[in-house]
Amino acid sequence: MLSNPSQPIVLASGNPGKIREIQAILAGHPIVPQSQFQIAEADETGKTFVENALLKARNAAFHSGLPAIADDSGLAVDYLHGAPGVISARYAGSDASDQDNVEKLLKELAGVPFEQRTARFICVIVFIEHAEDPCPVIAQGIWEGRILDEPVGDNGFGYDPVFWVPEYECASAQLASEVKNAISHRGKALSILASAL
Amino acid sequence: MLSNPSQPIVLASGNPGKIREIQAILAGHPIVPQSQFQIAEADETGKTFVENALLKARNAAFHSGLPAIADDSGLAVDYLHGAPGVISARYAGSDASDQDNVEKLLKELAGVPFEQRTARFICVIVFIEHAEDPCPVIAQGIWEGRILDEPVGDNGFGYDPVFWVPEYECASAQLASEVKNAISHRGKALSILASAL
Repeated sequence: MLSNPSQPIVLASGNPGKIREIQAILAGHPIVPQSQFQIAEADETGKTFVENALLKARNAAFHSGLPAIADDSGLAVDYLHGAPGVISARYAGSDASDQDNVEKLLKELAGVPFEQRTARFICVIVFIEHAEDPCPVIAQGIWEGRILDEPVGDNGFGYDPVFWVPEYECASAQLASEVKNAISHRGKALSILASAL
Repeated sequence: MLSNPSQPIVLASGNPGKIREIQAILAGHPIVPQSQFQIAEADETGKTFVENALLKARNAAFHSGLPAIADDSGLAVDYLHGAPGVISARYAGSDASDQDNVEKLLKELAGVPFEQRTARFICVIVFIEHAEDPCPVIAQGIWEGRILDEPVGDNGFGYDPVFWVPEYECASAQLASEVKNAISHRGKALSILASAL
């Protein structure tokens, strides 16, 4: 699907960290952030991570005329039937800070015992050859954990301070970024994408 | 995700063959076709197989209140940039027969040499726990082949008479159904679903 090694690919993100990660996987292919085409962000109206990633990728492919990569990620808590899910970044409102979102989550889970606080981070990355591509490459990474009672740790972002990681028995925000990247939902999805492409 | 072994699951299909296949994978779980709930079929408005499968599963889960499984499948031809894709079953029109669709496909590919007639059958099966589940199980099976110049064989359905299978150097419609089921896009997707669940 990527037979021409100089084929540029548009990335539906302007995040420099994401651009570097994707670039590392795609070796020779030039990765162009969608901002270079003045492409506005797609509305994230999907009910699942994969549908949101596809909306973003399609928007980028349509406006650039290039193959596109996009991702979507978030947290799903079993006790809350999958919430905050696709609205993880705006759980406490459209202008919510990470702290606002974490506070809302802890309030929703107040009194719920640790065994019932199971949750997972999910990251879905998709690749489409063009805006009408019916068969995207879909790479989904899942990171199982539990939600702590209160935030700990200074690394990471989002829900990292309340996401307890069973492999290390600490919060995600207490992990060094290299450790997190190796075992996280995002790390897994990137690795699956690399194999698939 | 399926911790209660007696949890019924609704299947967004009334096809007896599909019901048997899914039943075999899900062992104890009762599989209920959506027709038993008088659920109307969902509109397949998605641009990808996975989005259509999710639309169908969500419709079934919403109206039944049960976890749901749905699939979507079709043919993507490289020379036609992925067409017929998600409209494979209605390529020649909403009331088109298999023969109408095959004839249209052969017309679109008239004169295109065999090496450039690469194509793939795709089957995507999704499982959601409820209508708002942000993180579906997604099982995608792909079967690579080429499009023949004219139909051969009497087995199968749809595009099987013009889908050349490299493993057997014959058309898909010339394969015994057990052989086809073992190597087809649908067989692969079912096997991935079984591992995932």
